[in-house]
Amino acid sequence: MIQIRKSIAKDRWTIIAPARGNRPFDFSHDLEDGVVREDCPFCEGNEEKTPPEVFAIREGGKPDGKGWKVRIFPNKYPALDDEEVPYRIEEDLFESIGGFGSHEVVVESPGHHTNLEDMAPEEIELVLDGYLARYRDLISDPEIKYVSIFKNRGKQAGASLTHPHSQIMATPFVPELQMRELDNTRNYFERMGECYYCNLLESELSAESRLVFENEDFAVLSPYAAISPFELHIIPKTHRCSFEEVSEEEKRTLAGTLKRTLTGMKNELGVFPYNYFIHTAPGPERAGNNTKSYYHWHLEIIPRLTNPAGFEWAGGNFINVVQPEEAAKRIRRALP
Amino acid sequence: MIQIRKSIAKDRWTIIAPARGNRPFDFSHDLEDGVVREDCPFCEGNEEKTPPEVFAIREGGKPDGKGWKVRIFPNKYPALDDEEVPYRIEEDLFESIGGFGSHEVVVESPGHHTNLEDMAPEEIELVLDGYLARYRDLISDPEIKYVSIFKNRGKQAGASLTHPHSQIMATPFVPELQMRELDNTRNYFERMGECYYCNLLESELSAESRLVFENEDFAVLSPYAAISPFELHIIPKTHRCSFEEVSEEEKRTLAGTLKRTLTGMKNELGVFPYNYFIHTAPGPERAGNNTKSYYHWHLEIIPRLTNPAGFEWAGGNFINVVQPEEAAKRIRRALP
Repeated sequence: MIQIRKSIAKDRWTIIAPARGNRPFDFSHDLEDGVVREDCPFCEGNEEKTPPEVFAIREGGKPDGKGWKVRIFPNKYPALDDEEVPYRIEEDLFESIGGFGSHEVVVESPGHHTNLEDMAPEEIELVLDGYLARYRDLISDPEIKYVSIFKNRGKQAGASLTHPHSQIMATPFVPELQMRELDNTRNYFERMGECYYCNLLESELSAESRLVFENEDFAVLSPYAAISPFELHIIPKTHRCSFEEVSEEEKRTLAGTLKRTLTGMKNELGVFPYNYFIHTAPGPERAGNNTKSYYHWHLEIIPRLTNPAGFEWAGGNFINVVQPEEAAKRIRRALP
Repeated sequence: MIQIRKSIAKDRWTIIAPARGNRPFDFSHDLEDGVVREDCPFCEGNEEKTPPEVFAIREGGKPDGKGWKVRIFPNKYPALDDEEVPYRIEEDLFESIGGFGSHEVVVESPGHHTNLEDMAPEEIELVLDGYLARYRDLISDPEIKYVSIFKNRGKQAGASLTHPHSQIMATPFVPELQMRELDNTRNYFERMGECYYCNLLESELSAESRLVFENEDFAVLSPYAAISPFELHIIPKTHRCSFEEVSEEEKRTLAGTLKRTLTGMKNELGVFPYNYFIHTAPGPERAGNNTKSYYHWHLEIIPRLTNPAGFEWAGGNFINVVQPEEAAKRIRRALP
């Protein structure tokens, strides 16, 4: 049984998913020593080791066989499950929702060591196609309030398998930080009559000190109040509230932007553990309000070079040991 | 220069402290392999390697010499500094405060391998005396809005040195999670006319499923929506908003409660990395409102057995793989 529980004091949801504790770990030391293993469930030819695929881009072959370029299937050790009942209990001291939702794995390439930054932009674009297809399908369920698309690279970033992959989680709640970001950008919009991110872009593109690079569709910034060394945000220049609204042209540029950003980071930092995730306006049930005006989707990359400690856990505030302007300068110089 | 910056979108403060990136790390593998080193700055006899002490409990000797039982001094690599100017800038897109505050180290024992759970309750009580003395001094500065008392044990918990120690940070802002907890417990009080934690205690002591143990002054609980496996809260039975108000009797009981809790956890989990921190009502500037009625200080312990990943970083929501009731049962059985 999976249950999502809320701490009333902290106003924070936690997924209680005991079965997930059983998942295997194949890391021994660092990012690079994952041995190619015949039993890697994400490698081509081992499709029978995973649940049946829900999406794939194939050059040939049958579903759950060889011949794919990108392959998406339910996580074998899911944090959420679409067979759980989405009940809701609200009591004064205890509040909970059933663990309804989904948790999928996006294998980005058949190659065990083919990292995103080493792929051609056209190949990265196929990964984005996978994100978009699953996003659109999952968000159409009225019980689903948000779809999180994220990547864990390296053990320190919380990955349990080496083979490059992303994850997609559909939750019956809007994640706390996303909700807060929606609230805060709505407040800004109500006060200023303009989108916070649009105004931020204008300011950062003219100041340049935190700009890593820009192209026709995106700006890559070191955020002013970065929570970790070398945190970078990829922000679309065209105002759209949701990732699912990106144009074909933007999707193509995003693939190249991701490749260039990750390559610059790797050039400067060496192989590094990181998380990235897409922040986007939540599901259709919010379309009634003016999300479209005030929210602006973007992608955030957080290298996991330091460990959050007691201060961070206790208070939710972070200590960053690298000045964001210095981070921007160093990655800018290291760009391919 | 240290600067505290706010992300407007996330409503979250981050301390930008570049000099802190220079601090040394003495861990090689795990918790137990820290070698006793003549150059450990926290060991007795090496007092000249630290800034001058601001507090010590001594059986003999002069300040900054041998003979102490507990010793507190400014962190050599501070995240905040009382020589910074506490300016405040509020602009539409960028908001900041100068890095004014303090960051102190509490060395809990002269012994390099003397962990809290191995100390006598009377010795742990001296550590609590140190916390209280520094708390009262630091909170008296009107620029200081909160004093965080926390402990990082083990590299995975963010500790950079093996020798057992805690830290005290005085910040010119109330940490985000603490602020949210204050807001939420005030809302509860306004709705119910009673303290959230008092009501929670009554419910948990009668249900017992998440109770690890209780004594005359404290209850040790596995929280309903624990964010990590084996997270435990030590909650005082007497309603007090602030840690600084504990009675002599409670302080004595707390020392024994901490020892028993950490020993039970170690018996069940083996040597484990963890953070603990005290949640308390903030500084005197809030005394004007009714913090005293609605807030209830307590101590939280978070074992660091899993790594937060993209989902946690993106959304602020956690996935916990151990049912809180199961965690309570296992620690309960392992108590000394």
